[in-house]
Amino acid sequence: MSALAVTADDIAAAAVRLNGHVRRTPVLRSDAIDAIAGRRVLVKAECLQITGSFKARGGWSAISSLSPEARAKGVIAYSSGNHAQGVARAARDLGAPAVIVMPADAPAAKIAGTRALGAEVVHYDRATESREDIGAALAAERGLTLVKPYDDPLVIAGQGTVGLDLAEQLEVDRADVLVCCGGGGLTSGIALALERLDGLRVRPVEPEGFDDVTRSLADGVIRSNERISGGLCDAIITPQPGELTFPIMHALCGPGVVVTEDEALRAMALAFAHLKIVLEPGGAVSLAAALFHGDALEGDTVVTVVSGGNVDPATFARALETLPPPDPVGGTR
Amino acid sequence: MSALAVTADDIAAAAVRLNGHVRRTPVLRSDAIDAIAGRRVLVKAECLQITGSFKARGGWSAISSLSPEARAKGVIAYSSGNHAQGVARAARDLGAPAVIVMPADAPAAKIAGTRALGAEVVHYDRATESREDIGAALAAERGLTLVKPYDDPLVIAGQGTVGLDLAEQLEVDRADVLVCCGGGGLTSGIALALERLDGLRVRPVEPEGFDDVTRSLADGVIRSNERISGGLCDAIITPQPGELTFPIMHALCGPGVVVTEDEALRAMALAFAHLKIVLEPGGAVSLAAALFHGDALEGDTVVTVVSGGNVDPATFARALETLPPPDPVGGTR
Repeated sequence: MSALAVTADDIAAAAVRLNGHVRRTPVLRSDAIDAIAGRRVLVKAECLQITGSFKARGGWSAISSLSPEARAKGVIAYSSGNHAQGVARAARDLGAPAVIVMPADAPAAKIAGTRALGAEVVHYDRATESREDIGAALAAERGLTLVKPYDDPLVIAGQGTVGLDLAEQLEVDRADVLVCCGGGGLTSGIALALERLDGLRVRPVEPEGFDDVTRSLADGVIRSNERISGGLCDAIITPQPGELTFPIMHALCGPGVVVTEDEALRAMALAFAHLKIVLEPGGAVSLAAALFHGDALEGDTVVTVVSGGNVDPATFARALETLPPPDPVGGTR
Repeated sequence: MSALAVTADDIAAAAVRLNGHVRRTPVLRSDAIDAIAGRRVLVKAECLQITGSFKARGGWSAISSLSPEARAKGVIAYSSGNHAQGVARAARDLGAPAVIVMPADAPAAKIAGTRALGAEVVHYDRATESREDIGAALAAERGLTLVKPYDDPLVIAGQGTVGLDLAEQLEVDRADVLVCCGGGGLTSGIALALERLDGLRVRPVEPEGFDDVTRSLADGVIRSNERISGGLCDAIITPQPGELTFPIMHALCGPGVVVTEDEALRAMALAFAHLKIVLEPGGAVSLAAALFHGDALEGDTVVTVVSGGNVDPATFARALETLPPPDPVGGTR
């Protein structure tokens, strides 16, 4: 096995930089969720992270590592919204100007949130334009440092601090750790952080139609999605796993799990009802896997990292419609 | 000043009983919330507590103190839903049968949640019947121990553990601590727990039309509400402050704050958008006071205890409708 791009030491160093600037999110659970899943479900609630997703970690990790000169020139990122907000907030607090390249069809709440953090937003068409090309051109033109959404060692190290949290918070020896997976920054980072805990097996979870990582892991080589736009789980739609993240996931992760959009919506609704947290579709697929794909899991406990909660009210209302009406029957008098 | 019914020692003892059985809920914050409020807002998220509200604390505190004989006979409680679930869960885990007297118009989600925890539910009409009378009769008939929703020293001590959490979690010397207030169990418990921290002033928050505690504190004697049913904030609608809780609040609390139902709904929506937590109307009034009644507050930081998240989807959807559409304008290209 060749050397991986990131090590556990890099994650430990990122944790030092992040200390006091991001939140240690809680691990939640509920009897009702356990009953539906048929096993104990531990939910690492990164939707409660600053900026509403785990992306605040990678953004801070990367920008806090820049030289004063590079910070002063500024940073650029391309993102459907969560990485945008993570980078924008870190940039603002670290004194760096930020330009964010966002798809024109990103959720309005994410665009507005990014702008509210002081970033300059540049739109592109997800179906016809390459955000990588746009980002690279702007970076060259203005001397900006590109903060990639996942295929950057500092970003992977930042996301991996979720795994360090888990190592301290969990009291389980053996469990599948389900992680919402787009390009693989969070999944590979957590896998590295938990590498020495043999009983904890990290597994990526993806939405149907965008299961590039699952297929890549199965085949042992990088596979791409046919579509790279559309779909409810905007936060985790990427063309293919990263050049850096894939080797890490291939070395350390168990097989992927694929869920439907309807299952993601139902997981959002059950998280509303029983955990009292707000999830976006792409942030709920790991919980959906725990709830509705129990046959694919091992052990009497499963850990799910729910990764974000930046969802438009209309999409959330749609998720709530999947809830069965409560059955209060049975009271007497 | 005559002796109060509960002491700081009682709260410390409750914390020992509760250790490992309830969750230490996080303190959250958001730049966007601060901007609206005009000061820093720290949000103690008891909606993330087991059973979806702080009531799990008081229930466990009371039932864990019962003799084995009393536990075997069982407990009874009257509640619109949150106390019901807190008592039902503690009773189940401590091996006590539970009967819960609930208003017929309680939210369906709360009735269903209580039944799911194994309790027997008995309905009554909030407008025409006395839950206290019904509870007392059933208790006598079956030998059940009545666990009152607030006017019980063990329950007040349990709720007061929220204050012990805050004393450890907060890094502020001076702030108003706003607490959603019904009968005053949570408010008086927190006030006792924080009694020695001079800079932290606990203040009850109530919905318009059900401001019995605010008026009682202003007048120095117990005042009642004209209405005792109806209203969106079912969790905190009570006839009047308790015989035990009022003297504590009178001795230790600052003046009450009264918010409208619309403000509670808007606070729920902003908590959804910026904190990613689910609040019920009665659990959001403290945040509403911070957001919309800043003129009534002192200091550059305010602490709000948001107390519950057991809300029906329809009510939550209604709250989301108060959100202004996000303004994504300003992207280029």
